[in-house]
Amino acid sequence: MRAAVAGASGYAGGELLRLLLGHPRLEIGALTAASSAGSPLGAHQPQLPALAGRIIEDTTPETLAGHDVVFLALPHGHSAAIAARLGDETLVVDCGADHRLADAAAWQEFYGGEHAGTWPYGLPELPGQREVLKGARRIAVPGCYPTSVLLALTPAFAAGLAEPDVVVVAASGTSGAGKSLKPNLLGSEVIGSVSAYGAGGVHRHTPEMEQGLSAAAGVPVRVSFTPTLAPMSRGILATCTAPAAPGLTGAALREAYEEALRAEPFVTLLPEGVWPATAMTYGANTAALQVALDERAGRVLAVIAIDNLTKGTAGGAIQSANLALGLPEELGLPTNGVAP
Amino acid sequence: MRAAVAGASGYAGGELLRLLLGHPRLEIGALTAASSAGSPLGAHQPQLPALAGRIIEDTTPETLAGHDVVFLALPHGHSAAIAARLGDETLVVDCGADHRLADAAAWQEFYGGEHAGTWPYGLPELPGQREVLKGARRIAVPGCYPTSVLLALTPAFAAGLAEPDVVVVAASGTSGAGKSLKPNLLGSEVIGSVSAYGAGGVHRHTPEMEQGLSAAAGVPVRVSFTPTLAPMSRGILATCTAPAAPGLTGAALREAYEEALRAEPFVTLLPEGVWPATAMTYGANTAALQVALDERAGRVLAVIAIDNLTKGTAGGAIQSANLALGLPEELGLPTNGVAP
Amino acid sequence: MRAAVAGASGYAGGELLRLLLGHPRLEIGALTAASSAGSPLGAHQPQLPALAGRIIEDTTPETLAGHDVVFLALPHGHSAAIAARLGDETLVVDCGADHRLADAAAWQEFYGGEHAGTWPYGLPELPGQREVLKGARRIAVPGCYPTSVLLALTPAFAAGLAEPDVVVVAASGTSGAGKSLKPNLLGSEVIGSVSAYGAGGVHRHTPEMEQGLSAAAGVPVRVSFTPTLAPMSRGILATCTAPAAPGLTGAALREAYEEALRAEPFVTLLPEGVWPATAMTYGANTAALQVALDERAGRVLAVIAIDNLTKGTAGGAIQSANLALGLPEELGLPTNGVAP
Amino acid sequence: MRAAVAGASGYAGGELLRLLLGHPRLEIGALTAASSAGSPLGAHQPQLPALAGRIIEDTTPETLAGHDVVFLALPHGHSAAIAARLGDETLVVDCGADHRLADAAAWQEFYGGEHAGTWPYGLPELPGQREVLKGARRIAVPGCYPTSVLLALTPAFAAGLAEPDVVVVAASGTSGAGKSLKPNLLGSEVIGSVSAYGAGGVHRHTPEMEQGLSAAAGVPVRVSFTPTLAPMSRGILATCTAPAAPGLTGAALREAYEEALRAEPFVTLLPEGVWPATAMTYGANTAALQVALDERAGRVLAVIAIDNLTKGTAGGAIQSANLALGLPEELGLPTNGVAP
Repeated sequence: MRAAVAGASGYAGGELLRLLLGHPRLEIGALTAASSAGSPLGAHQPQLPALAGRIIEDTTPETLAGHDVVFLALPHGHSAAIAARLGDETLVVDCGADHRLADAAAWQEFYGGEHAGTWPYGLPELPGQREVLKGARRIAVPGCYPTSVLLALTPAFAAGLAEPDVVVVAASGTSGAGKSLKPNLLGSEVIGSVSAYGAGGVHRHTPEMEQGLSAAAGVPVRVSFTPTLAPMSRGILATCTAPAAPGLTGAALREAYEEALRAEPFVTLLPEGVWPATAMTYGANTAALQVALDERAGRVLAVIAIDNLTKGTAGGAIQSANLALGLPEELGLPTNGVAP
Repeated sequence: MRAAVAGASGYAGGELLRLLLGHPRLEIGALTAASSAGSPLGAHQPQLPALAGRIIEDTTPETLAGHDVVFLALPHGHSAAIAARLGDETLVVDCGADHRLADAAAWQEFYGGEHAGTWPYGLPELPGQREVLKGARRIAVPGCYPTSVLLALTPAFAAGLAEPDVVVVAASGTSGAGKSLKPNLLGSEVIGSVSAYGAGGVHRHTPEMEQGLSAAAGVPVRVSFTPTLAPMSRGILATCTAPAAPGLTGAALREAYEEALRAEPFVTLLPEGVWPATAMTYGANTAALQVALDERAGRVLAVIAIDNLTKGTAGGAIQSANLALGLPEELGLPTNGVAP
Repeated sequence: MRAAVAGASGYAGGELLRLLLGHPRLEIGALTAASSAGSPLGAHQPQLPALAGRIIEDTTPETLAGHDVVFLALPHGHSAAIAARLGDETLVVDCGADHRLADAAAWQEFYGGEHAGTWPYGLPELPGQREVLKGARRIAVPGCYPTSVLLALTPAFAAGLAEPDVVVVAASGTSGAGKSLKPNLLGSEVIGSVSAYGAGGVHRHTPEMEQGLSAAAGVPVRVSFTPTLAPMSRGILATCTAPAAPGLTGAALREAYEEALRAEPFVTLLPEGVWPATAMTYGANTAALQVALDERAGRVLAVIAIDNLTKGTAGGAIQSANLALGLPEELGLPTNGVAP
Repeated sequence: MRAAVAGASGYAGGELLRLLLGHPRLEIGALTAASSAGSPLGAHQPQLPALAGRIIEDTTPETLAGHDVVFLALPHGHSAAIAARLGDETLVVDCGADHRLADAAAWQEFYGGEHAGTWPYGLPELPGQREVLKGARRIAVPGCYPTSVLLALTPAFAAGLAEPDVVVVAASGTSGAGKSLKPNLLGSEVIGSVSAYGAGGVHRHTPEMEQGLSAAAGVPVRVSFTPTLAPMSRGILATCTAPAAPGLTGAALREAYEEALRAEPFVTLLPEGVWPATAMTYGANTAALQVALDERAGRVLAVIAIDNLTKGTAGGAIQSANLALGLPEELGLPTNGVAP
């Protein structure tokens, strides 16, 4: 099967290509981009010598046509038009935000403009979601932060162990912001510094977290979300907390997580007392998770580490695509990280 | 006036010396340490060429005697015995934890062993605390995390704008852990990684935060505290949130902070919409603070950046010592950071 | 075929295991170590969830017996005794220094103690070395710095284009120093700082570089080598320069390198004008190389990037082992890096 | 005396302001810039709360008029016209490259365009240079790399201990490239990576090094210079080597450096065996230097660390300005670094 990657010169595109190069069933077809079209991929992704000489094409329905799967790593607002031209027989996997939200009003509030519609949500670990993804032809890949938060708290909410007043503080590596030429993303600004941004209820990933957690809880969940930028290129560490349900014990909490995660190929519940580090997941499609009951504060605490580009974007996209294409879910996805 | 520094070969000791070298009224007297006694300071603090040839002495009451002020940067458990030998005429400023807590049971629970007693708490920005510190002869310097959290949330609790269910997630640079030879502090482990540690209600700074916030609130405050280690050598970014009091508006919240911080020489309330970065305070005795009402989640959000070694330890110690010695509070303390 | 790894809890051991997990023909057998024997691998290599529950055994001839290949990632001085007990039918690949040098006097000068003898040198890219390695049962894996320098300068010396007065300055990530608890390797010390060490002709990799370059040149080559420690966990960037042979042109120099590297699967000569970055090779068994004639200074300049743990240690070890075992040289070795 | 800073929103400008805020005799006057004119300084230099509300003016002769000293931190090509309008009574200190080179042909070759003329070179540590700078009204601040290299090798060449075939490899923090929005300066690109750039004889600082070393040696000196970018925001570590003069001993070499540096307030010759780290000089106007004779390779090796923004730019500028203004050379310049 042949896969095209639109947005091949960016960070998500590069990670898609790295993973596809190791995928035994997906062959790399067209590589496309906008401003870098016409240049060799090696000028943008020098870490991929196998593709160094491939010339990037323009992102158009024509260049993307004729593939079994098309991965879109584009700014938001572009995927609906392209997907409409690709036909229903092509699997379109959108790494952007366009089709993640079911609530058009939330889309309007956080993104502005017209809502492009909702696609199957590409997080197979959510209850029942694998069945949804099998055979799907459109997939909305979750945002990197929501991936981490939904993996961390869904087991608690699905089991009724937490109350819906969630606080999340997450640290992200700089690649989460893409290859944008913004002053605050310069190396001189981010090295040696941790900073908050998009805080106070305005970050666009907030309604996506609330959507997923509310579905698990069966009641509306509100999330206070503060993202921070850390001096590393990859990784998300999300600290997620919610009031404990009355009578919850630490043992019951751990048991619920063990039960929920027992069969998950990519999510590891760490041994008790070991807390996650993003280095545990560097370059791998994995999540490292720990959960505890803070009895003093009366809160469930779940901390999770993922690689924002792998499980948080490109790896998650391929994992869902595997399901949609009828392939083994784990095919071609690294589970062992690059450390130290 | 002459100042001695015990623990001169460590990170807090080095920062004390850097600041004392620029202090117009405090002359550096004895430099002492434990295992590094007998070696030149330059072997441990090569960034301080002015003191490179000074030989480190043993930390004993004798070597520390005869100074106007003695700064103790020692592991916990050592300061009470030394202070007892120094006499009441010497100002003793303890950068360790021994005398911060008023509650002996909390000490017992979090530190173990016998409680050494309570000294005046060296955070002049707390309501009424400057009067307490003027003329004091014993000072307990706050922990670095509590410094950040108390500066961030005291204005809200003192004004009755928040409810006592606090969640704090803080990122710290590695120097907060001291010069300890632990595998998890190796450069290879911390570079490129953010990790959680001491989470779930067990970190020793938790009761200290609760003590300070409860005093401000007039009711018991519980804190869910998660510290994380970030790949930088200095800095704390603390994200602090609590449920908003009923009817609170964003304007009232900001006004309360502006009022509370107007006269503070070291705490800056950033312009609206600008969130703190630790780089804003690198090497300076300052705090950079932002506060907002997250109306969606119904929570007060305060984010603060400090340098854990400066305002969080050595600078805060000198600030309190200035007050105790009858000097201008700001004397010798840098307010301009080293950036980028 | 089954592979054992001695030194499994260290950085080289972890990288060997990561690569072996992806190797289609080598199955992981015994994992051994010294002080960490008895603990689960997950406590030391949390990035490898597939092996988290495996218990580390003691490093003894008995635990290492019965494998087709044994990788030794041990401090120097241990490999000869172990190899003697494993028998000639076992391939022993020593990632340590014991058997790299042919000159016992150089060993004595730089390492001290008795020379353990010389094994086939595991750098297949050296002229004629593939033939040496095919069927070998003992392999000395090159040092990480010599790997980079020999790859960078051998084409020039082998073609007679440079004179034997070499200057090398290399930056290494901290993992090159291993998981040693030394104060200068603490995160607080290395973050934000580049430092020189082992300079002035005393670094143990110096005679190894001279041995390899002298063999290529046919005359004795002297190397002035200065290693530096950079604030990254992985990677070597080596800047290598030597006086140009009389009459050398830039075109002839480039042509010689293109010719020498044309068939190399792991060494990329970058497009003209593009200089290497260690990020190009992160986690991959590759080298990124550029060469130029500095006409003003009259010197050949070759700059090379490798990952010190992959091509510089574990990947290079497996590459040579593949040859010795009669497998395709490239089997199981990633050529695409993890970036950004 | 009043000082204006042109280029106040950039990195060099920010460092000038940080140092001027601590200078007892220079008061900060106009702050000017190009595209950021009209905005408050706090939007660009949030680490300087004392100046947060100051509005940046346009860089024009009018806004810069009426000061005792004007510091220019501008792109090259702008200083001559401004200086011409400021009159001879104003001290103009140019942190840019325009007036560093005496050789118009070298300017033409490396910078292009017309040479703007030569100003007194602002490196007081060069032989006889203090006399040149006293009372000067125009000063060309050296480049950051040449500052490091000239401090490192001038003692050797001035004493005839080295031969004129110099090799320099230097690592710089990212702030050396300024606040430019270039893809290769993004945090995601520089974190975790060391890269070479401007190699092979084309870097603009090369002729400046050759000019200074040739003056010291009395014969033409050629420099092979390779700059590299390291994942830190500040600091230069320059490794400098040249063939040893016949018969040179290590003792004679060290003695020459001790003699040359004995009276220097800002340059520290480290104890034998201790090699420099950039952290030794972070935020200070100091240089940390080590020199050794590599007898094996027959070369003099000098390694030096400076802070590129302090001794390498802003601190060096103020040091020279102090001399020109008849102030003590050391006034207002920190000699103690911020570490760790």
